[in-house]
Amino acid sequence: MADQSQASVAYGVFNETSEHEKRVALTPEIVTRLKKSGVRCLIEKGAGDAALFSDEDYEKAGAQVVDRQAVIDGAQAFGFVDRPDAALIDALPKGSWVIGMLGSFTDQAYVDSLQAHGLVAVAIEKLPRQLSSAQSMDEMTSQNSVMGYKAALVAANAYGSFFPMMTTAAGTIRPAKVLVLGAGIAGLQAIATARRLGAVVTAYDVRPASKNEVLSLGAKFLDLGLDFSKGQGEGGYARALTPEEQAQQQAAVDAKAAGFDVIITTAKVPGRKPPVLLTKAGVDGLKRGAVVVDCAASDLGGNVEGSAPEQTIVTANGVQIIGAPTLSSEVATTASNLLARNVADVLVHYIRDGKLAVDLSEELDDKMVVAGRPAEPASADAASKE
Amino acid sequence: MADQSQASVAYGVFNETSEHEKRVALTPEIVTRLKKSGVRCLIEKGAGDAALFSDEDYEKAGAQVVDRQAVIDGAQAFGFVDRPDAALIDALPKGSWVIGMLGSFTDQAYVDSLQAHGLVAVAIEKLPRQLSSAQSMDEMTSQNSVMGYKAALVAANAYGSFFPMMTTAAGTIRPAKVLVLGAGIAGLQAIATARRLGAVVTAYDVRPASKNEVLSLGAKFLDLGLDFSKGQGEGGYARALTPEEQAQQQAAVDAKAAGFDVIITTAKVPGRKPPVLLTKAGVDGLKRGAVVVDCAASDLGGNVEGSAPEQTIVTANGVQIIGAPTLSSEVATTASNLLARNVADVLVHYIRDGKLAVDLSEELDDKMVVAGRPAEPASADAASKE
Repeated sequence: MADQSQASVAYGVFNETSEHEKRVALTPEIVTRLKKSGVRCLIEKGAGDAALFSDEDYEKAGAQVVDRQAVIDGAQAFGFVDRPDAALIDALPKGSWVIGMLGSFTDQAYVDSLQAHGLVAVAIEKLPRQLSSAQSMDEMTSQNSVMGYKAALVAANAYGSFFPMMTTAAGTIRPAKVLVLGAGIAGLQAIATARRLGAVVTAYDVRPASKNEVLSLGAKFLDLGLDFSKGQGEGGYARALTPEEQAQQQAAVDAKAAGFDVIITTAKVPGRKPPVLLTKAGVDGLKRGAVVVDCAASDLGGNVEGSAPEQTIVTANGVQIIGAPTLSSEVATTASNLLARNVADVLVHYIRDGKLAVDLSEELDDKMVVAGRPAEPASADAASKE
Repeated sequence: MADQSQASVAYGVFNETSEHEKRVALTPEIVTRLKKSGVRCLIEKGAGDAALFSDEDYEKAGAQVVDRQAVIDGAQAFGFVDRPDAALIDALPKGSWVIGMLGSFTDQAYVDSLQAHGLVAVAIEKLPRQLSSAQSMDEMTSQNSVMGYKAALVAANAYGSFFPMMTTAAGTIRPAKVLVLGAGIAGLQAIATARRLGAVVTAYDVRPASKNEVLSLGAKFLDLGLDFSKGQGEGGYARALTPEEQAQQQAAVDAKAAGFDVIITTAKVPGRKPPVLLTKAGVDGLKRGAVVVDCAASDLGGNVEGSAPEQTIVTANGVQIIGAPTLSSEVATTASNLLARNVADVLVHYIRDGKLAVDLSEELDDKMVVAGRPAEPASADAASKE
């Protein structure tokens, strides 16, 4: 292992692997990168196994591969794929830094618990994504991009025919007609991937601005004859529609959907119930053999009525509804490399004069530090300031 | 149901669905097509379910959906995805026609049993593929084409990174390097599909003629520095290599394979042990996270040492070896439509003056009719004439 005795900041990452989570918040490539910024890395044994990074790979890159307690004891800052649970929050020393997608938009109680434990919390979901300095930290973009790519592959793999047109001696097979609902980062990547495979792709999004993006990828934009303007929410997310808009949209999408072989929905709204983009009536209208991939499937419901997370449901009419909320995890190696880079770049931003420090005069700091903010009373109210 | 009382030939198809077989030898589209040729169709209940054709779909197209015995009793000719087993051969009336991939190149005892039961057997594997009139009957081509497409999708879906190059704010991801071993119909389709997805593709085949086909698809041809000329076997299959050639090829391929992320092998030799194209040493040399799809995996072994049919084996080094011998069945709807068209066109070829008849003066008949040949003694020897 390289001599890292001069490194000023020790960064720890845990094994967050679970049944549907193969990603890891630190990869060997990023260990090497962080070393150049004076950051010494500790990683829990086996943390990268599911993403196909071995403990040896980490050691070769210069990380210390240790047990969980040694990560807790040895590091000042901790990076996460998900976020630390209550037990881990309890175990982290006061003053430790926690960096990850913390769910701060929708879970104030959680942010309060970080504050109460004296932790400094950097919420990546609050990244001011429009800043050019923030782009390499944009975990939302990197992971949704992976998700969209994978969604198209999963759909193609489940579909009983070809995506491309095929001309054979036994007849010509027409290309698959794919409809992508939600044209954010994930949707655009799904469009691009389905088109690469030769499908004829149409897309829809409530944000009027998305139309040009869809067209620029060579896909058609679905004309519902409806106008849901002002669709763009804060931070670039699709906003949730009003009930009236949802009803209108549903009826129109349901009617149009019957003409497609494959439907991919990507309208996730972090922490909240996703908008329904295809109702049961819409599903019932789909042709036999149609495939639906719902990237927003959750226990709260998904974009598609009747979807369930991590399940493939086959309707009486032979339609497959694939509830696939963890697709970025399925492309584990690359998703981890991108995520690790994002989190590492956030970490490095906060290293000032060789130490971790917050500077609220910087927009990145002011927006993202949700607990442990300096020069503010250590109360829950202050921590929730936006 | 349409009036089919004038139809002169009744054609029956059974439910051949099993764990790894979703295809069906008749589809509603082909029912309609056969009706125009005066062929009345009987299909066993539920035969198309796994390929997403319902009994109602068949009835709408004009087929009779009946139980197994009624198919046996009502039809004179029977089409198959696989081939009838001993019990069904017993049950079929003398004089019935059996059309399918019968394994006649390697299983003379089976052909003898068809002959002994007084059946007329048309072996599609003996199709003279070079005849233009045979092209729409070429089940080998249609099913291998589906297999190759699916092999690339399965590989992309299992791979932990992207096939295409991606340039993101968190770094550029290089495209996957894919090696396709065996550049027949399946290999060429795998090449085309992997390239569609943005991978950098290299291919290899022992037949020198395959080099130009590989290059014409925009892939590179792997230069092993070896010459296995005279590689093309009868009927367009890759022949099995000699032991010496295999050893040379193995050493060279094993050495080159280490540079690839994904390896797809497609060198099936029907009825025989497939040639080994990647040895254990080759697999051991692969990089962590590499994906191998062996379309020739079988109980006799596959193109890849250590592969097993219908299993994904993960090596200690994190290499996935996917044994995938039934991939055409996984694209069940389209594979069935193509196969059904192939078999139906074979059937229709033998309808002469409204009845099924063999004319040995025609090359198609002389090559393919392996049992029940007219003007020849009804002995096993005659049935095996090639």
